[in-house]
Amino acid sequence: MDAMWPTGAAYINGRFMPVGEASIPVTEWGYRRSDVTYDVVSVWDGAFFRLDQHLKRFRASMEYFRLVPRESDSDIRTMLHELVRRTGLREAYVAMDCLRGSAPTNLRRHPVNARPYLLAYAVPYVWLVPQEIREQGMHLIVASNPRIPEECVNPRAKNFHWADMTRAMFEAEDKGAHNPVLLDFAGNVTEGPGFNVFAVTDGKVATPDRGILEGITRGAVIELCEKLGLPCEVRTVPLEELRGADEIFISSTAGGVIGVTRLDGRILSNDRPGPVTAKLGESYWRFRKEGWCNEAIDYDPAIAAE
Amino acid sequence: MDAMWPTGAAYINGRFMPVGEASIPVTEWGYRRSDVTYDVVSVWDGAFFRLDQHLKRFRASMEYFRLVPRESDSDIRTMLHELVRRTGLREAYVAMDCLRGSAPTNLRRHPVNARPYLLAYAVPYVWLVPQEIREQGMHLIVASNPRIPEECVNPRAKNFHWADMTRAMFEAEDKGAHNPVLLDFAGNVTEGPGFNVFAVTDGKVATPDRGILEGITRGAVIELCEKLGLPCEVRTVPLEELRGADEIFISSTAGGVIGVTRLDGRILSNDRPGPVTAKLGESYWRFRKEGWCNEAIDYDPAIAAE
Repeated sequence: MDAMWPTGAAYINGRFMPVGEASIPVTEWGYRRSDVTYDVVSVWDGAFFRLDQHLKRFRASMEYFRLVPRESDSDIRTMLHELVRRTGLREAYVAMDCLRGSAPTNLRRHPVNARPYLLAYAVPYVWLVPQEIREQGMHLIVASNPRIPEECVNPRAKNFHWADMTRAMFEAEDKGAHNPVLLDFAGNVTEGPGFNVFAVTDGKVATPDRGILEGITRGAVIELCEKLGLPCEVRTVPLEELRGADEIFISSTAGGVIGVTRLDGRILSNDRPGPVTAKLGESYWRFRKEGWCNEAIDYDPAIAAE
Repeated sequence: MDAMWPTGAAYINGRFMPVGEASIPVTEWGYRRSDVTYDVVSVWDGAFFRLDQHLKRFRASMEYFRLVPRESDSDIRTMLHELVRRTGLREAYVAMDCLRGSAPTNLRRHPVNARPYLLAYAVPYVWLVPQEIREQGMHLIVASNPRIPEECVNPRAKNFHWADMTRAMFEAEDKGAHNPVLLDFAGNVTEGPGFNVFAVTDGKVATPDRGILEGITRGAVIELCEKLGLPCEVRTVPLEELRGADEIFISSTAGGVIGVTRLDGRILSNDRPGPVTAKLGESYWRFRKEGWCNEAIDYDPAIAAE
């Protein structure tokens, strides 16, 4: 059967709708206090990638922020399948948010008086950067402003506190680069807007262990390193190590593995994604094609009436 | 004539509507990256309080975040008057936001490719805490988690990065208190969710100068101290000073001056708002009643058709 909403479908607190109709009240704390957590899973070739892991992380994020909706993980899984089915998309970007809601006006304006609820949507797959940049390599800068420390906002609980990221994105733009990487207050590498960072030195891969979102694609890359016999260390990565690396690459649900060819203008590996990066990138997509950690979407059943 | 929308009116990018119809797309970066700045001005007895200052601060916040909408300050002023007129409210809480928007799907997902726009709404006046707490005094705790440092997100540019505040609000609730006050990483007082903090020691008032939103009501209190001949220092306020204070009070657009009678369970000034607090609170409302820094709303003109 035909897809109902090929440009995107959304779900809000029990109801399905075209993504263009999905909106949130301007008075809602999910927006006004950014009191919300989220996750994003990709669909490729008609299958979710590592949906279990995304659902597990999403649940942990919700619990961390005390944002517990009425839906169980099993409800969420069923809903996400249904969302993608309604778009008919074989490649999709699927976001799920849990918002605080807001307190009824007769109660104290405290989050404890609000009722959290779920929102989700599926749209055509989103790439972190366009194809040209993925092929030729991304140009990064080291941002002037540090990442929000984890003592203030836990980055492992995925959140929309992006003002530090956004500011750094403008700085990158001003300097003619594509994206920033942010440091912590000690000068160690954390992450960039929507991606984790890896440094390759003398054939060894390293990626930060703290102050970051533990990306699902990052986890996949760490596993791939093991499969390919590449040493990979998860630990503090000082800026100097990044500056001196033979190769740098990033990982993201919105693009997999993407090579970085410039850092603050310095050219890496002849201005082309390096050999370790290329190997990991190829393996990533090959394994995914082979069905690695996939969960197929059943596009066949007639869509249930609402 | 009768008010059109007594429960609240909203404006989004050129259009007026009842507040219940005002919403933002779930895919919009104002929500998804909390890429938005805002301000809130109060209307009391049919007049805006310090609207000039709010507009000036709002403009500065917008420029800081590179969120520049098409409306001039004069356009915003006219729009806010119109908003309140449409509600007919004599006491109102008036919020104005500038959101990033989002990049068209054919362009790179960078904020530079989005078109910022304005949203505003006027609803019945909102109190930070209910009357009982305002009269008897607020119970504060010192939050375990620090405030997001200004090196990461500038607190003078008003923003919705409240996860640190929200977490601390839950901690306050867990401990049977009403609200938290957050420290910076050096252990100095910053602010609480929606308010600035003042300590009174030996008849002298002190309030933090850094790591805070420079509240308009905070500014009014500093001026009031001068009018009343109370010494007031704007400087670093260490936690020890707050703990040892004779009186503590907070200032907020949503309530003016509110006394604090407990800090981490310790009782201040016999569990009642202290004399300096009471004097400032009374003066605040008396001056406002007398029209201090007011800008009256003209409720008479027929509302122009859209």
